Amino acid sequence: MAFENMKAFFAEWVPKIDRELYSFLERKMEMQTDPFNRRVVEEILRFAKSGGKRVRPVLVVAGYLGAGGEEPERAARASISYELLHNYLLIHDDIMDRDELRRGQPTVWKSFLDHYVKCELERHDAESLAMAAGDLAETYATEALIDAGFDPETTVLAVKELHEIAERTGYGQVLDISLEFLPIGDVREEDVLRVHELKTAKYTLEGPLHLGARLAGAEEDVFKAYSDYAIPVGIAFQLQDDIIGVFGDEKKTGKPVGSDIREGKRTLLIVKAYENATPAQRKLIKAVLGRESATPEEIEEIKDIIVETGALDYCKQLMEKLVEEGVASLRDAPVEEGVKGVLAELAEYIIRREK
Amino acid sequence: MAFENMKAFFAEWVPKIDRELYSFLERKMEMQTDPFNRRVVEEILRFAKSGGKRVRPVLVVAGYLGAGGEEPERAARASISYELLHNYLLIHDDIMDRDELRRGQPTVWKSFLDHYVKCELERHDAESLAMAAGDLAETYATEALIDAGFDPETTVLAVKELHEIAERTGYGQVLDISLEFLPIGDVREEDVLRVHELKTAKYTLEGPLHLGARLAGAEEDVFKAYSDYAIPVGIAFQLQDDIIGVFGDEKKTGKPVGSDIREGKRTLLIVKAYENATPAQRKLIKAVLGRESATPEEIEEIKDIIVETGALDYCKQLMEKLVEEGVASLRDAPVEEGVKGVLAELAEYIIRREK
Repeated sequence: MAFENMKAFFAEWVPKIDRELYSFLERKMEMQTDPFNRRVVEEILRFAKSGGKRVRPVLVVAGYLGAGGEEPERAARASISYELLHNYLLIHDDIMDRDELRRGQPTVWKSFLDHYVKCELERHDAESLAMAAGDLAETYATEALIDAGFDPETTVLAVKELHEIAERTGYGQVLDISLEFLPIGDVREEDVLRVHELKTAKYTLEGPLHLGARLAGAEEDVFKAYSDYAIPVGIAFQLQDDIIGVFGDEKKTGKPVGSDIREGKRTLLIVKAYENATPAQRKLIKAVLGRESATPEEIEEIKDIIVETGALDYCKQLMEKLVEEGVASLRDAPVEEGVKGVLAELAEYIIRREK
Repeated sequence: MAFENMKAFFAEWVPKIDRELYSFLERKMEMQTDPFNRRVVEEILRFAKSGGKRVRPVLVVAGYLGAGGEEPERAARASISYELLHNYLLIHDDIMDRDELRRGQPTVWKSFLDHYVKCELERHDAESLAMAAGDLAETYATEALIDAGFDPETTVLAVKELHEIAERTGYGQVLDISLEFLPIGDVREEDVLRVHELKTAKYTLEGPLHLGARLAGAEEDVFKAYSDYAIPVGIAFQLQDDIIGVFGDEKKTGKPVGSDIREGKRTLLIVKAYENATPAQRKLIKAVLGRESATPEEIEEIKDIIVETGALDYCKQLMEKLVEEGVASLRDAPVEEGVKGVLAELAEYIIRREK
């Protein structure tokens, strides 16, 4: 599969979305009268420019067109709200996870720490500034959505949709953080899948499609069709992310290999591995999982356990099944045919990608 | 002055606002299906109930009535969005400032730390959970504003107003954090007053009045009148806050005496004191300001310097002048007379209060 429809769709919309996004943030930067806030907005812009595939805003446009929307340029203008929301959540997420790199570049808190090192900025202060930067990006998201200029009835529903999406993602985040407090043996597969549903499936696929549908004034059957596609495919998306996080190529992912293991993330890979592990293997998982100082050798041992216990195969099979289910649901969906093609290819791409 | 109009106005609206606020959060809590999110929403509710004078939501209602609004109960319902925004910002602020107490009760991150101590929750994890709790409260704020049910045109303008308020407060927060990176001798009076304008005057007084005016569909002259009152009085509010923070009674304020000094806050009190200090006094200020481990004796010495250099008198006089200016601006303001009376009393109250 060459993903031709998908590639063409992204090639058409990503540059338009980027132009809107960057000019919005450049305008915000110009408005700052003090050097500190200018620096903070510049940092949000730097972070927004540092990569990312723009899956979410592109899906806002797809969701809009799939539901019969007739002003896709306006939808693209509105779609940057989703990317701004995404930047806001990533900036906070990187503080919470203590990640220093994303997309091969310093995260926002790390960048503040490096930038202000001459003023003896403590780590906590850098985190505070990054937290404030994230909070600012949230206000930008709402503003950008309103300023796209849809009629007031539509705008109110869309703003409500965007905040409901952020709310659900927040619940996913709380659950994700909280599961790390539990001993690994107490974390159940259904808990992990619930986090994936809230934090990835609803957030990365369903949310953008729903926002687009909302902007197009779609009926409930379109929302349901988007959910039937997005939830299974979105969970598969996260499973592939977890696999890449452990088995991926650091050069391609831009994230250090094993960071999920060092952070103690409760992925299905590790939960399944623990479930099927021998007592000796369980002991090793417990000793390494969540230890920042784990050595490369220890990380390799955990990877071996994930393979030997069948956890990797289990996740891959589940992923295939979920994608199949999601793609099948498109067949009779009340969605424009061209958009169906893009969504079907995206689902396949998701489980083939390497970063 | 017995503040009769003000007291009656607060006595009428605070219970209604509280009822709306608590039932909103209780509903959110009931909706949670996992114990972790239930615990987080419960914590937001606990924090919302832990006190606070409800100045901001009450001023939303005042701003609405002052601009001729005719559905004050609906405005009260919308006003809880401001209190939710406030809780969101306070939860984040307490993480940034590492404050363990607010209103005599544990702050949210501290409460998570205490609650989850049996799972060996690290401080950073408690901060992460609190950050996520704050992010959730932000989504609640927008939802509550939309759900108050004003017509779509008004709702869009109000949501935009609320996010512009949060944006400006964010710039104030960035400036506030950043000034702490500068040596005390490099911080200018105008920088400090700019933070007060953004973080307090616009946020605590102008913002609520403007949101109320927006909900009432007011003309621009009403917004201007509210600003002419709110900016000077709001700066005075912060100056009094700073004075209470250093010279207040811990039992009344619920915050440990000297915490502003230990945190290294760039208040006008300390900036003015440094400006007028002798070389020996400057040395002492530099040694104590921002040192978490400063002793009670050292805090007392700094307090003496603030008095001896005339910084305390300077702030008090500036405060009186600002309140006079704000109250005088009300005379010809196109605002309903009863509300003018409440605002005038509030301005006087602000500089007399002890907590």
